[in-house]
Amino acid sequence: MQFKFQIGTKVLFGKGCVKASKLEFSKYGKRAFLVTGKNSGKESGALIDVISVLEQEGIEYIIHDKIENNPSLENVYTGGKEAREFNADFIVGIGGGSPLDASKAVAVLAVNDIDPIELYKNTFENKPLPVLAIPTTAGTGSEVTPYSILTRNDMQTKMSFGNEDTFPVVAFMDASYSESMPNEVTVNTAVDAFSHAVEGYLSRRSTAASDIFALEAIKVFGSCINNLIENRYDFEIREKLLYTAMYGGMTIAHTGTTIVHGLGYSLTYFKGLPHGKANGLLMKEYFKFNYETAKNKIENILKILKLNNIDEFGNIMDKLMKYDLKLKKEEIKQFAALAMKQRSSSYNIRSVTEEDLEGILRCSIKYGEHN
Amino acid sequence: MQFKFQIGTKVLFGKGCVKASKLEFSKYGKRAFLVTGKNSGKESGALIDVISVLEQEGIEYIIHDKIENNPSLENVYTGGKEAREFNADFIVGIGGGSPLDASKAVAVLAVNDIDPIELYKNTFENKPLPVLAIPTTAGTGSEVTPYSILTRNDMQTKMSFGNEDTFPVVAFMDASYSESMPNEVTVNTAVDAFSHAVEGYLSRRSTAASDIFALEAIKVFGSCINNLIENRYDFEIREKLLYTAMYGGMTIAHTGTTIVHGLGYSLTYFKGLPHGKANGLLMKEYFKFNYETAKNKIENILKILKLNNIDEFGNIMDKLMKYDLKLKKEEIKQFAALAMKQRSSSYNIRSVTEEDLEGILRCSIKYGEHN
Repeated sequence: MQFKFQIGTKVLFGKGCVKASKLEFSKYGKRAFLVTGKNSGKESGALIDVISVLEQEGIEYIIHDKIENNPSLENVYTGGKEAREFNADFIVGIGGGSPLDASKAVAVLAVNDIDPIELYKNTFENKPLPVLAIPTTAGTGSEVTPYSILTRNDMQTKMSFGNEDTFPVVAFMDASYSESMPNEVTVNTAVDAFSHAVEGYLSRRSTAASDIFALEAIKVFGSCINNLIENRYDFEIREKLLYTAMYGGMTIAHTGTTIVHGLGYSLTYFKGLPHGKANGLLMKEYFKFNYETAKNKIENILKILKLNNIDEFGNIMDKLMKYDLKLKKEEIKQFAALAMKQRSSSYNIRSVTEEDLEGILRCSIKYGEHN
Repeated sequence: MQFKFQIGTKVLFGKGCVKASKLEFSKYGKRAFLVTGKNSGKESGALIDVISVLEQEGIEYIIHDKIENNPSLENVYTGGKEAREFNADFIVGIGGGSPLDASKAVAVLAVNDIDPIELYKNTFENKPLPVLAIPTTAGTGSEVTPYSILTRNDMQTKMSFGNEDTFPVVAFMDASYSESMPNEVTVNTAVDAFSHAVEGYLSRRSTAASDIFALEAIKVFGSCINNLIENRYDFEIREKLLYTAMYGGMTIAHTGTTIVHGLGYSLTYFKGLPHGKANGLLMKEYFKFNYETAKNKIENILKILKLNNIDEFGNIMDKLMKYDLKLKKEEIKQFAALAMKQRSSSYNIRSVTEEDLEGILRCSIKYGEHN
């Protein structure tokens, strides 16, 4: 047995956790730099709670609400520069995966005046500022991982950096912040969380330690499937989804992702598909591709989800997600080639070739013309 | 759902992990203070591995091998003073629960010139030095908890302190260091690990997050029972026991312990019973006492252990541990009264009175005369 176990983040889970934990903010300093998107921080109610705590604690702050979806290196550069000029003591990231991932990059750039491409070197002269993370979706798990996934326009894909110092120091997980999500976002992000658990469980890097997180996430996701199909959400379901996202994140914090994410990045970058949906539409073929190599584990996933076979799983994904995506032959070739460049592809439990990835894409995009 | 999740320790698990991780030492400074007992560091082979790494990395060190079993405040005071005078950058704790718990106290005292009784205030002017923990037994889980359990002669019991800053920063978990344990120590420490998982699972403070650690520990302990009864140990079993101890520790890092530990401390303090044995001999009656209140969870434990009822569990404990302990009536009264003073008694899932604790003790000490 050989493994590394590390969750560098303290999680405070439960309704009202931000306002109940003022000292968690003030212990990191007197100047906070808030990183969020245009809307999510405000609409979720998280931003106003944070501001209220900061003002009570006499902490100065700036709100940087300029994080785009799938933030680019250029986008986080601006945030980092502003945080540096503000002389921030710590970063508060509020939002879905995009602002949370961006906040980790900003935390590095705030104390390291480097070209953002150098984030991928993963070693920094000065230790990143502490990040306090407040998710407003239930999917990414970024609040408990060291990863920051940024869009690299130079390489036409998304790529992650992160090391032990980029785990958020605290994650405040209050499901009421996720109530403002539109139904479609709720489903897509839930599927993203599920894909983290599954890809981690089926990764070559999976360990006894990561598997218990993955299995917990898969189990709890399973108990939410009917609600997701029927778009029935109460607070308890919101909490379960947030909990699933947390354990999905703790899984990939140990294992990373594999080919679902690798292929999905192109569907997001070139086709504008939301990240979770991009993963979801690939998963049935991903299971089929890996079935012989990881039969026991895939059967275990199906059993936990109370399903008899992979096709039943595919039916559920079809019910959860509508898409009308067409890919040209050359796009399939291009996306497979790009995914092969992702390190994560080598972690897939069955060895993959570019042709394998083309096959998975071709079978997944069933409404495509492939002309 | 409301919980806190925090494991402030990075675990490196596997054969050879100390020598394979030199940078984990050098990143904490140039002066190491090694805290260990008289024998365990040497006999286990851990001390020599650590020294070899420190010398290769050019780190100066002092070996403080004066930690007693169930170390007292006086005992850790001496270590703290020496570490302060040495101007240590970090502490390396090597051994069973006693040296590891002591190393946390030394880490505080090395940078805080306070009376050791003030450890129990749990807030320290200066942040404790980083502790690198290397267990040579498989029971305590101290390597992944913030707790330091010390003997308080002033109160005739053991009592713990610890806060978020006293988690070891790294735990090196190499089962080959546990091969030097005598059989009896192997059994007693394994039962201690099991009691952490069980008490955490049945604690009022148990959460969804702590339960997955507890259940994993119970499951893996269950797979080792026959080996423990027959004293058959190979490397795989040693690893399983170390893994059980880790998850037992991660459980109580969230929940703390309850009345088994509370009562057991007196059996150790006054009667010299090893800690794990003291816990083990109380567990059958502990299950019986809590059965109606926590029926589902106790049935689940029995199911995981493939047992039909609590008496079968008692038979296993009898096979695992021999003891010939007699208690006088007044001792039973005294020990119950002392256990009531432990905060952990209030975390027991069923509310307890002093009389309840007397009853548990009386029924547990079946060979006693109670005269």
